[in-house]
Parts: sequence; structure tokens; C-alpha cells
Amino acid sequence: MEFSSKLLENAVYEMSQLPGIGKRTALRLVLHLLKQPEAQTRLLSEALTNLRDEVNFCKSCNNISDTELCEICANPKRDKTLVCVVEDIRDVMAIENTSQYHGLYHVLGGKISPMEGIGPHDLNIVPLVNKVKEGSIKELIFALSSTMEGDTTNFYIFKQLEGLDVVTSTIARGISVGDELEYADEVTLGRSILNRVPFENSIKAD
Amino acid sequence: MEFSSKLLENAVYEMSQLPGIGKRTALRLVLHLLKQPEAQTRLLSEALTNLRDEVNFCKSCNNISDTELCEICANPKRDKTLVCVVEDIRDVMAIENTSQYHGLYHVLGGKISPMEGIGPHDLNIVPLVNKVKEGSIKELIFALSSTMEGDTTNFYIFKQLEGLDVVTSTIARGISVGDELEYADEVTLGRSILNRVPFENSIKAD
Repeated sequence: MEFSSKLLENAVYEMSQLPGIGKRTALRLVLHLLKQPEAQTRLLSEALTNLRDEVNFCKSCNNISDTELCEICANPKRDKTLVCVVEDIRDVMAIENTSQYHGLYHVLGGKISPMEGIGPHDLNIVPLVNKVKEGSIKELIFALSSTMEGDTTNFYIFKQLEGLDVVTSTIARGISVGDELEYADEVTLGRSILNRVPFENSIKAD
Repeated sequence: MEFSSKLLENAVYEMSQLPGIGKRTALRLVLHLLKQPEAQTRLLSEALTNLRDEVNFCKSCNNISDTELCEICANPKRDKTLVCVVEDIRDVMAIENTSQYHGLYHVLGGKISPMEGIGPHDLNIVPLVNKVKEGSIKELIFALSSTMEGDTTNFYIFKQLEGLDVVTSTIARGISVGDELEYADEVTLGRSILNRVPFENSIKAD
């Protein structure tokens, strides 16, 4: 793409550094901002730099939080013996949305991925193991996505916990509620049969 | 969406004001920035505010340009008697890419669209008519998209030019090079037959 303006080219370049935003989309977004009042561009860039400069992670669970201890960790009603291990804040938000979970979280900040150069030491794993060593956690629930990276990460943490007195579990994989069996993939259907639950439980959950 | 941080919520909100960016995508983009070095966020927001604050439009064609007169208008090799009327800079870039056009452009900045509240006076039409009145332009090529808004805008400008000594044309609509006739829509195919060109011309164009 040949630009008639360096300023424009620079803005499009920086915008296209975002994941999933190509040069064309970046140009469309930047031209949109040019048509809007100047305030909108200022609000956007201030919101981004403010977040980047002042972002704080909960000192206990590593979730993004404006306070030293996040609302969930600070809530006396949450069950502090139960910790759900997730990849990032999106997973926390998704699980919170269900209103089915009343324990705490531990945000790893990613998954072990040799392909992307992310090793165990780039993740928030040591503090998790230390928390377990302190002895107040009864159960860890692994809720990483069931990809190779997720399984590797689960397994790595599982090995680190060897000899420690903690129950580990993973969230159930199975057919989505409302899905037709015939369209489900075999691995999921297979797991949902292997890990079948007592019928009474399925009634309670709703 | 319930956010654990006001800073995060604010950044996601501002990002989701961009066209085609929903809350989920905005969150993904913002979390990506958080994982990158701080410099990337600063570069992005500076590029956007710099462009918004310092953007300049060519005083002749209204294209985005860092100089008072854009490179195309300032180029002595371009044919100044030929002006192509386009909607925005993307159209200029697309036509420049073909290397088939050696005239100037006139960027309207949009199309007449009552639905979006854009009237003729929100567009850069008066300067175009004035340029034509000065008498140095021999031909205006309308290259707006062939939508209702594009046709309305073409027609509005055409009416403004009544009585002035200028040839007007529109870019040819027809079957794309390489396309199969059977898949073409009827309007396009119909126009491509009505506006057929001498066979020799089609050889010259390649």
C-alpha cells in the first residue's frame, strides 16, 4: 500500500500490529477516527495508555484489578479452599457469568507453548504452587482450554504439585446443553460417556 | 460484561466504539496490548493522536497529505485537465495501484446519504464545481461506487455542472477480468453488453 501521508501510514501501521487487524481494516478504522470528533481519538488513546501504565494485577490471583486484592479474592463469602486455574481474565468473566462457582481463581496469564516461546517460567505458576504449599487450598480445578498447550500446562502444574495434599480436578468436557448428539465430535461424545454423572446431579444443576 | 477493573472496562469501551469491533474483540485487542511491551501501546496511541491533530488535506484535491499540495497534484507529469471524482483516499490508492491513470483526483469525503444525514454541503462538492468553472478541466470521471448513494451523488454533481464546458464520464461497469459470465449478476452483465468496447481497445488495455 502506498500512502500519500506519513502520518496516515504510521497510524495504519500501528493499528495493523493488533492481532486480526490487517492493513485494510486498519485503514478503515483510522479513516473512521478521522471522520469522528477529535475527542474520540483522544479518549481511545488515553484509555489505552492509562490502562497500560496503571494496570494492576491482584496480588493473590493475578487477575486484572484496580485494587491490590481483587473483588473476588477480597470477598469473604467466597470459598477460599477452592481455586480454579484459568488462562486469563476472559475465562474468569465467563465462569463468573454462570453464577455456579463460588471459589477463588488463579490466573496463569497464558499457556505453556514452545511454539510461541512461552515456557512455565513466563506464567504465574510458582505463586500457585506456593499457595498450595501453604496448605489452605483443598481443591484445584483446572479450567484451561483442552488444546495441546492447555493439556501440557495442566500436566506441568500437576507434576509440580506431586506430594502435596490437594485434590485436582478438571472441568467436565461433554456435549453442550441443547446440542444434538449426532453432530458432536467423537472425542467429546466419548468423554461425555466415560465421565457420565449420576442422573440426580443433572437435575440439581438446573 | 462485568469487568474487574474500571481501567480495563474503559479501554474496552473506547476500543469497541470503532466500526466492526464488538466488545469481545475489543477485549481481545486490549488484552493483547497488555501482553506486549508498553512501547507498543504508546506508539499506537501517539500515532492516532498525531494523525488526528496534524492531519492535512490537499488544498486542491482534498486527499490526505502531509504537504499543502499532495504529491499527485504537485506532480508536473500528471494531466491536469482530467479529474477523477472519488469518495475517499482508499479509492485514490486503488486507482493509483492500477498505474493506468495519469490525471488528478478530487476527493469528496463521502457520498450523499440522507439515511446517515450526509447532504451535499457536508461533502467537498462546491470546490469541485468552482474548479470546473475556472475552465482548465476538460473531463470529470465519476468513480463513486454504484450504489444508490453513489448514483445520487454523481447526479447531484452532474446537475451542478449544467451549462459548464466539461465532459463527464463514469468508470466502466462490467464483468471482472477472469470472471465467468454465468455467475455474473444480470445488471452488470446487461451493462457490460450495452457499454461494449471496440475489440482493439480490450487488447490495448493489457
